[in-house]
Amino acid sequence: MHSSAGLPLAARAADLVGSVIDSSTSLLASQTHDIVRFAMGAPAPEAIPTEVLAEIGAETIGAGAHAAFDYAATEGDPGLRAALVEELAGTSDETTLERLTITSGGMQGLDLACKLFVDPGDLVVVESPTYTNGSATALSYQADLLEVPVDDDGLQVDVLEDLVRRAGRTPKVVYAIPTFQNPSGASMSLERRRRLLDLARSWGSMVIDDDPYGMLRFEGEPLPTLHELAAGDPLVFSVRTFSKIVAPGLRVGWVDTAPELQPLLINAKQAMDTCTNHPLQRLLARFLEDGHLGAHLDTQRAEYGRRKRAMQQALEAHFAGRARWTDPQGGFFLWVTFDPAVDTEALFPIALAEGVAIIPGNAFSPSKRFPDALRICFATSSPERIAEGVARLARAVDRLAARTSGRS
Amino acid sequence: MHSSAGLPLAARAADLVGSVIDSSTSLLASQTHDIVRFAMGAPAPEAIPTEVLAEIGAETIGAGAHAAFDYAATEGDPGLRAALVEELAGTSDETTLERLTITSGGMQGLDLACKLFVDPGDLVVVESPTYTNGSATALSYQADLLEVPVDDDGLQVDVLEDLVRRAGRTPKVVYAIPTFQNPSGASMSLERRRRLLDLARSWGSMVIDDDPYGMLRFEGEPLPTLHELAAGDPLVFSVRTFSKIVAPGLRVGWVDTAPELQPLLINAKQAMDTCTNHPLQRLLARFLEDGHLGAHLDTQRAEYGRRKRAMQQALEAHFAGRARWTDPQGGFFLWVTFDPAVDTEALFPIALAEGVAIIPGNAFSPSKRFPDALRICFATSSPERIAEGVARLARAVDRLAARTSGRS
Repeated sequence: MHSSAGLPLAARAADLVGSVIDSSTSLLASQTHDIVRFAMGAPAPEAIPTEVLAEIGAETIGAGAHAAFDYAATEGDPGLRAALVEELAGTSDETTLERLTITSGGMQGLDLACKLFVDPGDLVVVESPTYTNGSATALSYQADLLEVPVDDDGLQVDVLEDLVRRAGRTPKVVYAIPTFQNPSGASMSLERRRRLLDLARSWGSMVIDDDPYGMLRFEGEPLPTLHELAAGDPLVFSVRTFSKIVAPGLRVGWVDTAPELQPLLINAKQAMDTCTNHPLQRLLARFLEDGHLGAHLDTQRAEYGRRKRAMQQALEAHFAGRARWTDPQGGFFLWVTFDPAVDTEALFPIALAEGVAIIPGNAFSPSKRFPDALRICFATSSPERIAEGVARLARAVDRLAARTSGRS
Repeated sequence: MHSSAGLPLAARAADLVGSVIDSSTSLLASQTHDIVRFAMGAPAPEAIPTEVLAEIGAETIGAGAHAAFDYAATEGDPGLRAALVEELAGTSDETTLERLTITSGGMQGLDLACKLFVDPGDLVVVESPTYTNGSATALSYQADLLEVPVDDDGLQVDVLEDLVRRAGRTPKVVYAIPTFQNPSGASMSLERRRRLLDLARSWGSMVIDDDPYGMLRFEGEPLPTLHELAAGDPLVFSVRTFSKIVAPGLRVGWVDTAPELQPLLINAKQAMDTCTNHPLQRLLARFLEDGHLGAHLDTQRAEYGRRKRAMQQALEAHFAGRARWTDPQGGFFLWVTFDPAVDTEALFPIALAEGVAIIPGNAFSPSKRFPDALRICFATSSPERIAEGVARLARAVDRLAARTSGRS
């Protein structure tokens, strides 16, 4: 047997970086002790409307539903596309059929955006911290990444402008998660959203507007999406998904783009997976047509608000004075920064042994800028489990500190 | 609104070619008159085991099945991977867990192979004719394609050797569909299979062994797959799918590769779609565990054999002396070549108006070498409908001939 070094790998193979988040899925599945799951950005198991999906499934993909098992159109099942256009009418994500293409999760939206716009060596701006798989996708297209810091008002657009000036070249793509950002939970202010679009226009850069959590606001006033603010400017490429609002395992999302991009998206997607799975598109179409989404989101928002507050209370009880954390108004994540510094990569296995799963901060930065931070997801666990999980985390931090001082 | 010409497209956007096959899905869906469907390579609607799938679905992805709606492991649902390893034990596709990665249809297997092995400008060998989306995927990675002719014994390996010598450089990848080839229906002889592997070893080329139809043999003696003949040589990258043997809408396939490639495949797939849809992986796992596949394939093979013979009889009745066609021993397709020549691209809309859908030969050649050929799928229609469809095709050919002579 040759080693893979003997195989004729493409140059980009060296840029295919692993994801701590996804490898955690397999790692967690192999654990046999009780673990509080703060790691994955997944809805609570009880938040997935399996009863409704089972009832609809029996009708839409049951006996005799041969068409649902055939290939779907590459741009998506017509019923799902029509239902989505209707569902989004009047919202900040309003769209039309010719702007809407169904994708295999939001992740494929990012893959398509890079396929269409990123040549090797192109400059791609990412937030710092950013979504691991988002930066990994840009890297898989051999992009040069420019990390721009995020604060409580989201991407620091003034720093972006300065860094681009210093780079001496303009970005091909700016990849932003403007609302309840993954992993920080921060939302970009309205002023920064407008300024980002102005800069992108002046540079001729595409803006990937990745907004998986925007419908999950439980506090504060809604902000217009970059999609809405762009008012049809083709430079904004919006990526959306059912993963966080219905269920991630469905692998169904959509992109909203300039209509002239749709033929290219179809060609690109045909060469990726032909079409998105058809039965679960039908299931989602019926879920929307029957009006389930609105009520489902109302329930989820209230519950996620409760859980965020439970997480903050538990952090306050265990970490007041030795860590800071963000205060998101929606979404799934809190970002915790330790002060004095805690090596969160060293913390990870200790926390897992204590029975709590987190993601170390460095997973969210290609240049590993966050060794003393971590992401915790408050969406997956009940308030009681959250309290227990944070208590376990505190024990893990204490164990790490004891080990570190014992070594010094 | 800018036109897409004003957008900062990547160089590869110019190489994203459309697929006549996939656009036919949308075109056919919009037709209101009766059409016999010889175009798509899809199983017969009645061949899809919807009753069994519905029964299993009610148990595996029904109420309370929260885990099935969560993210799956990127390499695939453990239950499905284990069931596949067991199902394939002792067959020509025998595999192990560390060689097996679940993909979103066979198409994603091709995308992954190109992601790992094709740099822009690399030479990629494709059969001529070949599967449209296979060559399109290589083009989307900016490969230089080398078309090598196929005859009744499949890829002409001696011509391949000669063309590579004349090209003055060795291929990075050879993309082959060795069994019941799409679109010709031909199978590569054992001698050619062995010779192809020898050549690939001597060149250090990867061989993509795309074999979606191999389990659908209804005549003749089985041939070992390239995977089996390679006996673990890491140069063979095998792509398989449930699309033709169970249902294409599921979008579940698998690749069998050298174990050392699996970590790279996982990284690459994470940046494509995170994981393959989870509920339908569970459905297929149960379908295999309950032993449904064997009986299902037995039924399908017998039926597809009947349909191929019905297709050949109808062609004999209408086209004897003015066309030739292949004699596949399995799979879905016949390849018809007209003599004297018939412009099958001009024939396409006339045939559609007459009520029969076919795919013109040029769709299967990047350099459009088959203007007088067409692909017909015998799998989708009953013998009666096949007779009707071929009669309609004969009328369309006559109408085209009348129009052509009227113009001359």
